[in-house]
Amino acid sequence: MTVPHDDRGLLLGDGLFETLLARGGALEHWEAHLARLAAGCAALGLPEPDGAAARRLCERAIEDAALSRAAVRLTLTAGSGGRGLDRPIQAQTRMFATAAASPAPVGPAALVTVTVRRNEHSPASRLKTLSYLDNVLARRQAGGAEALMLNTAGELACAAAANLFWVRDGRLLTPALDCGVLEGIMRGLVIARARAKGIAVEEVRAGREALDGAESLFLTNSLIGVRPVSMLDGRAVAESPLVALVS
Amino acid sequence: MTVPHDDRGLLLGDGLFETLLARGGALEHWEAHLARLAAGCAALGLPEPDGAAARRLCERAIEDAALSRAAVRLTLTAGSGGRGLDRPIQAQTRMFATAAASPAPVGPAALVTVTVRRNEHSPASRLKTLSYLDNVLARRQAGGAEALMLNTAGELACAAAANLFWVRDGRLLTPALDCGVLEGIMRGLVIARARAKGIAVEEVRAGREALDGAESLFLTNSLIGVRPVSMLDGRAVAESPLVALVS
Repeated sequence: MTVPHDDRGLLLGDGLFETLLARGGALEHWEAHLARLAAGCAALGLPEPDGAAARRLCERAIEDAALSRAAVRLTLTAGSGGRGLDRPIQAQTRMFATAAASPAPVGPAALVTVTVRRNEHSPASRLKTLSYLDNVLARRQAGGAEALMLNTAGELACAAAANLFWVRDGRLLTPALDCGVLEGIMRGLVIARARAKGIAVEEVRAGREALDGAESLFLTNSLIGVRPVSMLDGRAVAESPLVALVS
Repeated sequence: MTVPHDDRGLLLGDGLFETLLARGGALEHWEAHLARLAAGCAALGLPEPDGAAARRLCERAIEDAALSRAAVRLTLTAGSGGRGLDRPIQAQTRMFATAAASPAPVGPAALVTVTVRRNEHSPASRLKTLSYLDNVLARRQAGGAEALMLNTAGELACAAAANLFWVRDGRLLTPALDCGVLEGIMRGLVIARARAKGIAVEEVRAGREALDGAESLFLTNSLIGVRPVSMLDGRAVAESPLVALVS
């Protein structure tokens, strides 16, 4: 499978993607992923994706890969275009999907604060776009660990490929979306699960120092689900029984 | 010409590009473009590009297009990779070049300040990377005009695809590179030309209000050369004789 050299996703990072978990051949939370992709297209001024076609691409990718636990990536580009930044008047998006083995994470994560910042002054910071180089650079800087990214105001944002939660005084806290945070599907599920169990959740603007008073930390995304953090910038972090309640 | 679906430039915007002008089949400022590409590779942790191969790709693209005035785009991606953000241990970059007609700009530009900001807290803000969506969004917001981008501190940075200069009291001013500015080849040439003629040039950190006191403004890039600005956020801007001196 290939894309042509004039694809704007390739040339300019002009497009979006979704990463989904498939277990036993079934896509998890398909409707939520498709809704987010459609919202991203609207934000970028791209035509609404064909949901049935997108789903067929994902299902074919899972079948071809024949995996019991697969990470499915659905990519949507702004399609072919001429020279320069401006899209053709009638943008024709391009979609494709791939599937790869996705083993469940082994044990808790180590998290390291990096210097590459999320740009909360760009709509792209709240979308899963093909312009993902900052996340690549953040992860490189963290070495083998997970990268904790602040935004340009120095507020907590997220990990390079996961949302961030912490526990304090029996409550869950997570950075507000306008801190430059992707609206993670698993983030939304964890918030809903917590509230259904009577656990308070607050979406906040907070500096890095807020984590020094945290009892516990964890990361979420569609592939790892909920993953505890055992180490933050070299300091050991305890695990809270609260984390199991929302996993 | 195509690239495979697992290319990291396509999937993650992990890569770089150069845009060069070719006149009468000859590439302008090739050495400077190659040097910038090599510096970008070093900054991203990618292997040094093969300069001879890159030049052959560009020359073949010009020949195929048979244009008297061509915009040549040289694209370098981080190559094929597996799932996720991390590159393979031995990244094998991929290069290709295309050429398109590039008419000289007709007349001066209108410039409009947009809300999408340059992220000076990312190394990508000083590189010509494949994660260019912010520039696409800035240009869309400016409508038919050129987009003036500030950085996240509210300082002047650049246009969506050009560097910015202004004239005040017989001096040239331009945003410093650490404001989140691409080190434009034409930007460097204009600075050198001005200094050779005894015109003072200052690289500064300045807010948007600095332009209200400017006598004149212009944009630079490899394709347009030097292009005067006649309108800034709806206000007419005069042309200075200084602009012709550095063009």
